[in-house]
Amino acid sequence: MSRAAYSHGLDKRPANFQPLTPLSFLARAAQVFPGHVAVIHGRQRMDYAALYARARQLASALARHGIGKGDTVSALLANTPPMIECHYGVPMLGAVLNTINTRLDAATVAFILDHAEARVLIVDSEFAELAREALAKAKVKPVLISYDDPEFPGLGAPLEGIDYEALLAEGDADFAWAMPDDEWDAIALNYTSGTTGNPKGVVYSHRGAYLMCFANSLAAELGQHPVYLWTLPMFHCNGWCFPWTLSAVAGTHVCLRWVRAGEIFRVIATEKVTHLCGAPIVMATLLNAPDADKQPLPHRVRFVTAAAPPPEAVLASMGEAGFEVVHVYGLTEVYGPAVVNAWHAAWDGLPAAERASLKSRQGVRYPGLEDLAVLDPASMKPVPADGATLGEVMFRGNLVMKGYFKNQAATEEAFAGGWFHSGDLGVMHADGYIQLKDRSKDIIISGGENISSIEVEDALYKHPAVKLVAVVARPDARWGEHPCAFVELKDGASVTAEALAAFAAEHLARYKLPRTILFEELPKTSTGKIQKFALRERAKNLT
Amino acid sequence: MSRAAYSHGLDKRPANFQPLTPLSFLARAAQVFPGHVAVIHGRQRMDYAALYARARQLASALARHGIGKGDTVSALLANTPPMIECHYGVPMLGAVLNTINTRLDAATVAFILDHAEARVLIVDSEFAELAREALAKAKVKPVLISYDDPEFPGLGAPLEGIDYEALLAEGDADFAWAMPDDEWDAIALNYTSGTTGNPKGVVYSHRGAYLMCFANSLAAELGQHPVYLWTLPMFHCNGWCFPWTLSAVAGTHVCLRWVRAGEIFRVIATEKVTHLCGAPIVMATLLNAPDADKQPLPHRVRFVTAAAPPPEAVLASMGEAGFEVVHVYGLTEVYGPAVVNAWHAAWDGLPAAERASLKSRQGVRYPGLEDLAVLDPASMKPVPADGATLGEVMFRGNLVMKGYFKNQAATEEAFAGGWFHSGDLGVMHADGYIQLKDRSKDIIISGGENISSIEVEDALYKHPAVKLVAVVARPDARWGEHPCAFVELKDGASVTAEALAAFAAEHLARYKLPRTILFEELPKTSTGKIQKFALRERAKNLT
Repeated sequence: MSRAAYSHGLDKRPANFQPLTPLSFLARAAQVFPGHVAVIHGRQRMDYAALYARARQLASALARHGIGKGDTVSALLANTPPMIECHYGVPMLGAVLNTINTRLDAATVAFILDHAEARVLIVDSEFAELAREALAKAKVKPVLISYDDPEFPGLGAPLEGIDYEALLAEGDADFAWAMPDDEWDAIALNYTSGTTGNPKGVVYSHRGAYLMCFANSLAAELGQHPVYLWTLPMFHCNGWCFPWTLSAVAGTHVCLRWVRAGEIFRVIATEKVTHLCGAPIVMATLLNAPDADKQPLPHRVRFVTAAAPPPEAVLASMGEAGFEVVHVYGLTEVYGPAVVNAWHAAWDGLPAAERASLKSRQGVRYPGLEDLAVLDPASMKPVPADGATLGEVMFRGNLVMKGYFKNQAATEEAFAGGWFHSGDLGVMHADGYIQLKDRSKDIIISGGENISSIEVEDALYKHPAVKLVAVVARPDARWGEHPCAFVELKDGASVTAEALAAFAAEHLARYKLPRTILFEELPKTSTGKIQKFALRERAKNLT
Repeated sequence: MSRAAYSHGLDKRPANFQPLTPLSFLARAAQVFPGHVAVIHGRQRMDYAALYARARQLASALARHGIGKGDTVSALLANTPPMIECHYGVPMLGAVLNTINTRLDAATVAFILDHAEARVLIVDSEFAELAREALAKAKVKPVLISYDDPEFPGLGAPLEGIDYEALLAEGDADFAWAMPDDEWDAIALNYTSGTTGNPKGVVYSHRGAYLMCFANSLAAELGQHPVYLWTLPMFHCNGWCFPWTLSAVAGTHVCLRWVRAGEIFRVIATEKVTHLCGAPIVMATLLNAPDADKQPLPHRVRFVTAAAPPPEAVLASMGEAGFEVVHVYGLTEVYGPAVVNAWHAAWDGLPAAERASLKSRQGVRYPGLEDLAVLDPASMKPVPADGATLGEVMFRGNLVMKGYFKNQAATEEAFAGGWFHSGDLGVMHADGYIQLKDRSKDIIISGGENISSIEVEDALYKHPAVKLVAVVARPDARWGEHPCAFVELKDGASVTAEALAAFAAEHLARYKLPRTILFEELPKTSTGKIQKFALRERAKNLT
């Protein structure tokens, strides 16, 4: 028989093959650590037994309302306990959780509800008005559930619909939820906040979400029983899958409705927070907080950041403030972070600037991702690992989305050639670490030379008065384009355009210097990213 | 479209679905931490770049000898670098690694080689004579590879065959190994050391081995860059999958040819070992070492133990010696450990005896295992969670073997009713932790009452003179059976049978007291387990 012997009588069966799903982690945490605090929200404390019971009640109650496999349950919720419960209760039915960015406009929310074919919509009172407007525009008529947060009364008139707690009271805490039929089944639907065209619906699988739990645990070095502060919105890539990840390590969620420095410093101290995630804007919020809002950290706190390459100066200040920054990178399409700046102990001995420079690179594939490359999108061949040649960052493996919901054309385009095309431009360094340069539209071409807007921004960030910077192309009669910098200064700080340009000249080649510098508050997207597209428009129309 | 929408256009493809395999972790470690020490063996040091290169050379060279998918590569190796290299180089070809217990007799090794249809046999000189005898009895004619360890010259005449280093020199360090065709493909074949009948070949999949890497990382709290000492034989359930696990966390393997206390204490200190695994016999070896062999631990060292419920007294002594004991439980059929005594911080405050008692329970399912239960094998219903009702421990999920190689009948029997039947008897406690009682043959039935041999052993272990104990049934004209204790005393210690029985009476009901106590060195299996079946025979024939 020889070579064929391993293919006989060794098939998959329930005893040795079960679908991978993060639901399994919650069931385990509730069994092993039923009394461990799972969720803290203001004065509320919920242990793992209660979280599991409430998730099952939610599933049971939704089932009574006819929700089942393949149904979409949408949510307009803040980082509150119901949002965590939804991450379990909804997929327990084989239904798909669609968390909606609460900062979107009503028309976009209406588009999402219709496109997702929402059967249920769960709304926090803070966003009830947004939901009303969206529902008026939408075609779907979902079952409406209203959550009025007892910790934050009076945020708005609750949405007309079933009260969330009343809904749970209908449900059975011993509800016999089922494992997914297949680990490839959808668990979540996340709409990208595209800057042009309609948002696309990114579909996650149970398998991918499960593997992210393990991968996050290693990449963020969560250990057992971490205490995790919710500075990252859970509507953003399902909070990078941390709502599920915490169950794998029996951690504690510390909810947070609003990202405000004082409250963040307070709960880090009182709840002994060990980990938090967020965009660099959250780091800026912490660093630039008034002294009255700051508190010493009780211990070293791990801050996992992504979304934009962190400016070197910010990284250095965070270290001084007692945070250990873990730099990750990803997109909605790869479950949040799928790249991590894996740190080498040997780098600890380098000068601060060099350390910050190494830390600002995006890094290497996540444990759990099978491949990461910088490819020439035309030839699909890797660019030289020289730290200079630009290519497109591409991903391959189990931490990549199933595809775009009801959008076969976009799915095929994104997966052309067997890789997920991120649309991000970057370089491969000799040591295998990738570094993002700009999206193609962020490259400034001046006198035929490519200028990286990130490089110019990094130089300006080094100035002590600078809080936020965005550099975009401004049309230039002579050079084609030149770098135009929009600068937000720290409270009480001041610097002139001339002084700032002179400062930048110490760090940049002459042709890269911003020839236009404007001081103003920067426009930001609903997820806290600087709206470069708006600034690009402004730069175009400057006279 | 509604409910069907999630099943359209969202299929698996190379960009978003790759087979799970631990090979991926080595490739990642070699890329991210090429200069980190992967393997220490005596004076040898090998970094991750070198380990990956040598594994690829091995794969490439084996391919030149005609080895490919579905071929078995057998190994009679100690815990040395080639053994680690085989864990990667062999499955890189889609071939299956069959590590053979080096303490078996030649007839059993011959049976294994024939049953496994070994195409290659790699042999350490220490076991060359065993291999020669086995090959003389076996029908297969594998390609012979001989490893003569430069750190331990003169262990025996090397086997006639290709020198291991010469083989590697034939291979290409850039060999383009392929991911498995399917994550369900076989990666390893491990023969159980059954006490009756022929050994059965347990087949592992790439998927299971991959998930064990994550699960081990969490269960043993490896963190990043652990330093792992090889006290557990790698031929035993593939060393509980730690040869693969270390790559997921870029850890350092510290090889160890023989389990000797002096060398263990020495390398723990010099190489800063953080983790080791082993049967309780290894703990006994460490605790009972002469003072000259002992060295203070440089820091708290995690000792992961399994194979038999650790006696309470041993657990307490290990804690005093500076080891943090993690108690796990499993079988060859579940990739090594698949149950862990997950520790509660609140238990730290309990009295030592209570702590040890809690620690001696086997515990809860591993992260990565979907279900663990104590079932009545007749009804397949769970026994009451009362800590008293005996049932059979059963497993379900992705950490369960594919089945027994070429043994459909045994596979069907093991998987009857949708669960893997461990053959181990245990109870379920109210808090969901399982505790092994005896295999049915280890239960002593005296006057119609069941007596747990483990309970009697635990009582005897509390005596300070006792090193090892085994309690078995001895036929008894009046009572049917009575407990018969075989006792090995610590060097220089002494106690009479009468005194020991009186001591035991403080801890045991009268009917459970051993009515026969014999002092002698206990016979052990090749994996260090006490050979209870031999003692059972002796007890039967005592006059």
